[in-house]
Amino acid sequence: MATEKAFTKGCAAPGPVPKDSIRIYSMRFCPFAQRTRLVLHAKGIKHETININLKDKPEWYFSKNPSGSVPTLETPAGEVICESLITCDYLDEVYPGKQLLPSSPYGKAQQKMRLEHFSKVVPYIFNIPMGRRKGEDVSGLEAEMKEKLAKFDKDLVDKKTKFFGGNSITMIDYMMWPFMARMAAFDLQHCLDHTPALKKWMEHMSEDPSVKETTHDVDTYKTFYKSYHEGKPNFDYGL
Amino acid sequence: MATEKAFTKGCAAPGPVPKDSIRIYSMRFCPFAQRTRLVLHAKGIKHETININLKDKPEWYFSKNPSGSVPTLETPAGEVICESLITCDYLDEVYPGKQLLPSSPYGKAQQKMRLEHFSKVVPYIFNIPMGRRKGEDVSGLEAEMKEKLAKFDKDLVDKKTKFFGGNSITMIDYMMWPFMARMAAFDLQHCLDHTPALKKWMEHMSEDPSVKETTHDVDTYKTFYKSYHEGKPNFDYGL
Repeated sequence: MATEKAFTKGCAAPGPVPKDSIRIYSMRFCPFAQRTRLVLHAKGIKHETININLKDKPEWYFSKNPSGSVPTLETPAGEVICESLITCDYLDEVYPGKQLLPSSPYGKAQQKMRLEHFSKVVPYIFNIPMGRRKGEDVSGLEAEMKEKLAKFDKDLVDKKTKFFGGNSITMIDYMMWPFMARMAAFDLQHCLDHTPALKKWMEHMSEDPSVKETTHDVDTYKTFYKSYHEGKPNFDYGL
Repeated sequence: MATEKAFTKGCAAPGPVPKDSIRIYSMRFCPFAQRTRLVLHAKGIKHETININLKDKPEWYFSKNPSGSVPTLETPAGEVICESLITCDYLDEVYPGKQLLPSSPYGKAQQKMRLEHFSKVVPYIFNIPMGRRKGEDVSGLEAEMKEKLAKFDKDLVDKKTKFFGGNSITMIDYMMWPFMARMAAFDLQHCLDHTPALKKWMEHMSEDPSVKETTHDVDTYKTFYKSYHEGKPNFDYGL
């Protein structure tokens, strides 16, 4: 787990990326950056982590990634790769070790299609808590999310496998995990009450070393997101 | 160009996909489906086209693609691939002939990142005409779109190449084209007034055989979209 404090406005830029390494610009609690961190760990890729204060970004960070988002990868050759899914595909293709995407084009397409479906679940995970904070009735949103999650549950039941790509973890599992992992902290755990296969998937995922290495406990997420919603995100919480 | 009339509600399902072919479920005026058609043509892939009436979809189509969208690919083995970008990557990987994506992982990542930026231009192409139809002031949206297009213009100027991936057409060009090709029909041509390199790119693209084969003239698009906005899309217009 990254233990370095976040670089903030006014901080000097880090030096060049060491020759035998790759650098990830990250934020310790960001689910998108966690995707890339999962892949880095799962493949055993030597890397350096630079955490970014996303509220007061260091000025130099925009020269790396004009959008200022994380994750961003930087190679010793100065190549810069942004967007979580693009960074993960890049790492899987460039580095040896465990292959996370299927090698067959159709297998790859199936994972991308499932991920496209999952991208429609992600907004609910953030919008339901936001609605609640505004005092809105979120029961409709919750029902919609449950319906979408039920399809993922059915996928696992139909496939009769532990994970979405078979009996071992593949890319799709790591791409979904960071969002599912935040459900408990967002008080959305009850949305999984009728999806036992998906619950079991989460248990299996929790045992994975890369998941353990990159996932915080529920209370830590709760504390961070509380500080975030109060407008004073504590990016260094727990360090 | 597909010359077959659209399959509509009540139509019998087509037979199995011929062994030496691949089938595309398409709609003659859909920009997303055009992406896949461009790749099919550019790579010289033998294929069969089934056009779908997207207003009154044939019942059996949902068993192929539950979302009912186009494009969808179907192989003789019954494999189904949906989502335009996923279908294009699949075709490029499976079929020999002209390689449209760069072979280097970083080259691929660069095209995916540029496409991610372009995905933020696409909504303007539809939202500006929609705003106009509602009598809204769209000058703000137009200014935003021009600003985004200026970045693509600058990319071409900086690269000093005819196309976005070099001096020959690659995947990124085909993925952008269907949306850019509709700008004139949507009366958005003036948004290119200050992007001469992008205008030149459009001229170069217009000379490509696959672009010629899959692109209608401005009047045809205007007529189709008029019928579409009147609630009676004429999917067979011009046949």
